[in-house]
Amino acid sequence: MSFFSRELKAKCGLGEAEHDHGECHGHSGMIGWKWSVKEKLAARTALNLALDRELAAVIHEAKERAERIKEASDLWEMETWLIDQREGIARTFDFRYSVLARVFATLLRERRVSLIDLRGLAQEKLDTIERLSRT
Amino acid sequence: MSFFSRELKAKCGLGEAEHDHGECHGHSGMIGWKWSVKEKLAARTALNLALDRELAAVIHEAKERAERIKEASDLWEMETWLIDQREGIARTFDFRYSVLARVFATLLRERRVSLIDLRGLAQEKLDTIERLSRT
Repeated sequence: MSFFSRELKAKCGLGEAEHDHGECHGHSGMIGWKWSVKEKLAARTALNLALDRELAAVIHEAKERAERIKEASDLWEMETWLIDQREGIARTFDFRYSVLARVFATLLRERRVSLIDLRGLAQEKLDTIERLSRT
Repeated sequence: MSFFSRELKAKCGLGEAEHDHGECHGHSGMIGWKWSVKEKLAARTALNLALDRELAAVIHEAKERAERIKEASDLWEMETWLIDQREGIARTFDFRYSVLARVFATLLRERRVSLIDLRGLAQEKLDTIERLSRT
């Protein structure tokens, strides 16, 4: 578990258990990566930024959906949608260093982070993240 | 299962499985009640009315809650609240004739139906419902 997991969980509004995916994801090449203090800070900043954007978008859409509620089925659709959003965020924002390259690759592919957001990471990491984002 | 279960489920926006509580609730005294066509219609009308009020109140509160959302934790509180509302409605609006006296007693106790709403039921049923509402 990374040093900023508790902070991100708090930002997410998620419980302690939400991000505990276990330790084995098969990205053994990345588990061995060394993270300098500067890189850890850059990674934390980028992930915080993406999470802030994600949460702001979900809050905005929740308000719009609520405005459109007319009947009971709309209520339960909103319930299901909120569950999906929470589970999606918990799944996407997996901030263990061992899987962070895959996390950033997914966010990059979905244009939720940019390479500019990731400045501060070593070129080797950026190259791997960019390559993974195309797979 | 009562003859209007499907209709009420549709109104509720709930799936087929939501109201299937099984058949044994221990209210054997009420299982034996006879329901005339007029009483069935009165029960349906009263239950529909209470459900309409309940759903309108939940929709109103959902919109107010959404307006107050400021951060992620508010989103997940709304998710939990919606789950509670759906489960509460599914639990309360159990429209099998065998448990309907208890259902109306609960609604009467919580002022979600009035004795006026229940006009059309036989006096024996009204007396039982009123007595149960005080227990």
